[in-house]
Amino acid sequence: MARHGGNLQAASELYGLPCEQFLDFSANINPFGPPSSVLQAILHGVESVVHYPDPDASDLHQALAEKAGLPASHVLAGNGAAELLFAIFHALKPQRVGLLQPCFAEYAEAAKDAELVSVWARAEEDFLPAKPELLAVCRQVDVFVIASPNNPNGRVVPLEWLAEMADVLASRGAWLVVDEAFVDFLLDQESLHRANVILLRSLTKFYAIPGLRLGYLLAEPELVERVKRELPPWSVNVLAQLAGKAGLQDTAFATRILAWLAEERPFLAESLKELGATVYSGEVNFILFHVPLPDLAERLGRRGILIRSCADYPGLGEGFYRVAVRMRAENLQLLQVMKEEIACHTFS
Amino acid sequence: MARHGGNLQAASELYGLPCEQFLDFSANINPFGPPSSVLQAILHGVESVVHYPDPDASDLHQALAEKAGLPASHVLAGNGAAELLFAIFHALKPQRVGLLQPCFAEYAEAAKDAELVSVWARAEEDFLPAKPELLAVCRQVDVFVIASPNNPNGRVVPLEWLAEMADVLASRGAWLVVDEAFVDFLLDQESLHRANVILLRSLTKFYAIPGLRLGYLLAEPELVERVKRELPPWSVNVLAQLAGKAGLQDTAFATRILAWLAEERPFLAESLKELGATVYSGEVNFILFHVPLPDLAERLGRRGILIRSCADYPGLGEGFYRVAVRMRAENLQLLQVMKEEIACHTFS
Repeated sequence: MARHGGNLQAASELYGLPCEQFLDFSANINPFGPPSSVLQAILHGVESVVHYPDPDASDLHQALAEKAGLPASHVLAGNGAAELLFAIFHALKPQRVGLLQPCFAEYAEAAKDAELVSVWARAEEDFLPAKPELLAVCRQVDVFVIASPNNPNGRVVPLEWLAEMADVLASRGAWLVVDEAFVDFLLDQESLHRANVILLRSLTKFYAIPGLRLGYLLAEPELVERVKRELPPWSVNVLAQLAGKAGLQDTAFATRILAWLAEERPFLAESLKELGATVYSGEVNFILFHVPLPDLAERLGRRGILIRSCADYPGLGEGFYRVAVRMRAENLQLLQVMKEEIACHTFS
Repeated sequence: MARHGGNLQAASELYGLPCEQFLDFSANINPFGPPSSVLQAILHGVESVVHYPDPDASDLHQALAEKAGLPASHVLAGNGAAELLFAIFHALKPQRVGLLQPCFAEYAEAAKDAELVSVWARAEEDFLPAKPELLAVCRQVDVFVIASPNNPNGRVVPLEWLAEMADVLASRGAWLVVDEAFVDFLLDQESLHRANVILLRSLTKFYAIPGLRLGYLLAEPELVERVKRELPPWSVNVLAQLAGKAGLQDTAFATRILAWLAEERPFLAESLKELGATVYSGEVNFILFHVPLPDLAERLGRRGILIRSCADYPGLGEGFYRVAVRMRAENLQLLQVMKEEIACHTFS
């Protein structure tokens, strides 16, 4: 399988089913789909594809700034958070980069010209990293990239830890990049705003528009300008700009999602435990678990259910899987098919 | 004004008119707008924004490969040609870059870490560069970027010249990047395919979808892989992938556009000459001209007509303007307002 979840084309070729027949737990996307406010904004905006996007994305930046309670000069939108991550590395050109592993594969990809120094969060410790190790690495690197909540385990790093990391990094002119791609799924959202901290966020997961691409960063204006110089012009397409603005205004949608997740995540986590899986702590809309079945993703894939095998994550390995939290009926379907496959395995 | 044409937001702020009231000759976009095949593809595809884009853009790459008569391994789509240009520079990391000036401002932006060596095409020579100068610079650089047809003048560089440049560059392991963003507007389309040549193309001008962002390059598979490593994942959004594929299949649209342009470009060029403008030779859907009026763009802007002042292009200066060829009624409107402003000026 591909190195990311949500690759329906690859799944279709692998399992011989049409893309639309898969139930996809492999991508961490809000299962409600885009709110109707967002779909309407896209549909009404279709004719505007004939114009270049606003290169400054002014309306979108203003809406993002209001949400963050910051001036618009602290905001920069990109063609997905991944584009911004690459641009941050082009701007800062770090020689040594710290990572909390396991993590999103693109950090190492963006840092491919740098030396990596890793802190390992271990399954035995429920993927809570050791703070002294984090701080020790901060003393050695030019940039530390950490995700909170982290992907694939959903772990939130305590804000005080991030503050200590930022202090250590600041003392040597280094940067902390906090990937908050999933922060909108948290009930308590607290972020660290410091001169040497770059917050990286995404609108594609929460508003279910990964196909449109839309991410942003929050940082000091000087850093915003440096990163902007590394972006090609017009990188955020018009429909993403319109969709993002509409989503941010739809507070009713956000309330509904958080209420659903507060109920559905514990249900799915508990149900996975009942099937015998080791379920790791985490918040947000996906769950990391372990079962001693190296081919579970293939077994489910052949039956039209996609989950993310985490065998390729450094620090994980066979038997680790990540599933998105979906709607109750879909989660029940996943659990039923998993139960059958686990039973098959036991008796085979 | 902004450094690129087509910035309606900036125009709106500058001239105090709403964006939709401008008649925009400043962006070189097909005035027919997107063909209905493309609009339909976008509308039918709206619900697919809930999925990640195919990271390999397989269907689109296949359609582009068929159009080019090359295997799909020679094709790479990007979030606009500008993204690919930046990625080419990140991949090749040239120390010295040759440019045929005046040219699109983003070449120098993408080459900002390199030393620039320029060949100047001069107004006195109708912007035809001197071949010996081109070849001399090819002997000094790691990458030469040249647009054919060139922007802002629409000049086509003879294919034999490009071949000679590629040979000189190849002898020292250097690359030729030919920006063919406007090649689809040519009746005779001939491109140079060589191991050290990268062809850069756009679908946004011809299919009138600049808001969606879509460009591609054609090159040897090894170079394609190198550039791909510099792109963030999922850089081409789903709607751009669908729109591009639909546009490529719409051969009737292409025929219609070329027939219109063969009639309308000479009409607009001749009419500008009748107004006293010096009109430079060129092909494609825009025209570079000179009139001794430094504030023509502002005068027209206040009346709701946007043209591109080329005063900020190195090698041009005050009095140089670029206009897109639009529909007959719109071109007549431009000509009428220009006539009035030129008359005003003469008598003021």
